[in-house]
Amino acid sequence: MYDGHFEEDNLTPDEAKSQADMLAWHPIMFQVARVLSSTGILKEVKSGRKKGITPETIADKLSIPLYGVKVLLEVSLSIGLTKLMAHNTYTISKMGYFWLLDKQIEINMNYVHHVCYKGMFHLEEAILTNKAAGLKELGPWEKIYEGLSLLDEPIKKSWFDFDHYYSDVAFKKIFPEIFKDNPKMILDVGGNTGKFSIACCEYNKDVKMTIVDLAGQWNRAKKNIDELGLSDRISGHVMDVLIDDPVYPKNADIVWMSQFLDCFSEEEIVHIISNASKSMHENSALYIMELFWDRQSHPVPAYCLHGTSIYFTAMANGNSKMYHSEDMRQCVEKAGLKVVKDVQVENGYHTLYRCELA
Amino acid sequence: MYDGHFEEDNLTPDEAKSQADMLAWHPIMFQVARVLSSTGILKEVKSGRKKGITPETIADKLSIPLYGVKVLLEVSLSIGLTKLMAHNTYTISKMGYFWLLDKQIEINMNYVHHVCYKGMFHLEEAILTNKAAGLKELGPWEKIYEGLSLLDEPIKKSWFDFDHYYSDVAFKKIFPEIFKDNPKMILDVGGNTGKFSIACCEYNKDVKMTIVDLAGQWNRAKKNIDELGLSDRISGHVMDVLIDDPVYPKNADIVWMSQFLDCFSEEEIVHIISNASKSMHENSALYIMELFWDRQSHPVPAYCLHGTSIYFTAMANGNSKMYHSEDMRQCVEKAGLKVVKDVQVENGYHTLYRCELA
Repeated sequence: MYDGHFEEDNLTPDEAKSQADMLAWHPIMFQVARVLSSTGILKEVKSGRKKGITPETIADKLSIPLYGVKVLLEVSLSIGLTKLMAHNTYTISKMGYFWLLDKQIEINMNYVHHVCYKGMFHLEEAILTNKAAGLKELGPWEKIYEGLSLLDEPIKKSWFDFDHYYSDVAFKKIFPEIFKDNPKMILDVGGNTGKFSIACCEYNKDVKMTIVDLAGQWNRAKKNIDELGLSDRISGHVMDVLIDDPVYPKNADIVWMSQFLDCFSEEEIVHIISNASKSMHENSALYIMELFWDRQSHPVPAYCLHGTSIYFTAMANGNSKMYHSEDMRQCVEKAGLKVVKDVQVENGYHTLYRCELA
Repeated sequence: MYDGHFEEDNLTPDEAKSQADMLAWHPIMFQVARVLSSTGILKEVKSGRKKGITPETIADKLSIPLYGVKVLLEVSLSIGLTKLMAHNTYTISKMGYFWLLDKQIEINMNYVHHVCYKGMFHLEEAILTNKAAGLKELGPWEKIYEGLSLLDEPIKKSWFDFDHYYSDVAFKKIFPEIFKDNPKMILDVGGNTGKFSIACCEYNKDVKMTIVDLAGQWNRAKKNIDELGLSDRISGHVMDVLIDDPVYPKNADIVWMSQFLDCFSEEEIVHIISNASKSMHENSALYIMELFWDRQSHPVPAYCLHGTSIYFTAMANGNSKMYHSEDMRQCVEKAGLKVVKDVQVENGYHTLYRCELA
């Protein structure tokens, strides 16, 4: 972790007050920034290059009322997305470039607006009840997973764009570790779309995979697997990992859980690891790959993970989050295993825990 | 104005990207900060002083589920409201102190949450239609002024707290200017609660005031005026200043408009000034006192004014804002007057324009 960012209070009192002052207006500033993108106004400012452009020119070109263009551009100065060349003449700032052109920022912005914004109004209720109290803004579900396929557009697209973007992990970097003892059978718990299992089969010609997931997920994964002709090597074990006495397949050389446990509370994580470990033999390993907020190399990825935590709180399930590495380690130990290897994956964001029976 | 803040792009590319990255999560961070206040969690962190406090202790004390306390505190680290003393042990930061204890920040926060948050979802519609499209979240009105007395709590309290806080202007600092030619009759256009007229009567024993406002405002003002025994010196002229051929009282030595014109579009401002100026004689002056975003001595007040602009856009009327001093000057000129004196009021926030017939 970058040293001291969460420990040292380096702001002057003036800076601290300014930060607090501005925080009170954050939802409004977010919406201004979003609408500057969605209406194409910020793109026009960019096209005005270094000589700048007036609200009048943009309003004409986009057929948007002048008042609206002008007020958004004025506020964009405070946000930092634009700069003034002269009175009423705007140019895009460096920050504006990133806001306009960075794919990850666009995905986060759409996800926060379409999936999270309305529900966040109910965050206090979510905190007090331990329930995803904001989810009622999207549909009549207890947890968002029940409703994913039923979400309206553009909510659905925003959710899946976010999910795909962050689950696109470079597995190749970790395969030397996973395959070093030449595993014959890997249990892919929470295998979802089958991406990891498919990548394993492509990496190693002999390994057999078993995906443990809910029926909906498995049916979707199976389609991908069949299309790739891998149905003799990847099988499904349809099961809700939260049931009281789950029965996992036996004799897994490796149990794999990647960005899966953050969907569960600490108590549930202990339950899942503890039960899944029954499929292990004495030389098996259980791997956990997660994004831990205390293991990021820069404050901004930690900030994004913290934002995602609150999505879990208010929108997804009301009880999970992106974890601290130490809390996950304690869950592993409570489940009767120990972390024997703790590796920071090369991309800098993911941590890989190799766990063995204690 | 502080030099260069809106003109110079002083961020490094890394800083600019970080700012843009974080902007995408602003609504979530606002809600986390708000709930840390409203639940009392941040107050408990403060009470833990320099040795710090754990989420477990706070959850016990406040009877809030541990998960909720813990996830909010983790995220508070990214916002900057707390610092870590050790794993799982939190202390309040300088920023956290301001967030918790500053009255103005609390008023802004409640106003943004209760009055503005839900409606801001509709900002794009407001921009494209020139209408307060977010107002439907509060009630079935075209403009918020129609619905103020009908707002539900705590929306109503949040609106009036905000309004009172910012209309509590130190008039005494500007009275020497207003009264230097010994005016006998002052027209207080948009006199609202009567605060300015009452202050004038207390400052000068002879002056007569006439408040021009809507019936609702005048009736409320009249109550204050009667209670103070000033009904022989302050009269009302009930009128909507936007009607086609408004008739103002004649022979005003001074026409006064304080934080009033920001409730109207530029076109409407020209209409109002132009018609109100018919009550002037050749030695009269028309004074405009406003908060101009380009005249603030620090970026933060400008930021707050810009936030307020968007309240007008999405929630209040769909066509007004906090103005740039130059745009207001142009309105004055279009109305057939000229700005003959341009004074920055001692508090640093307000600007006073003395206008005369051109």
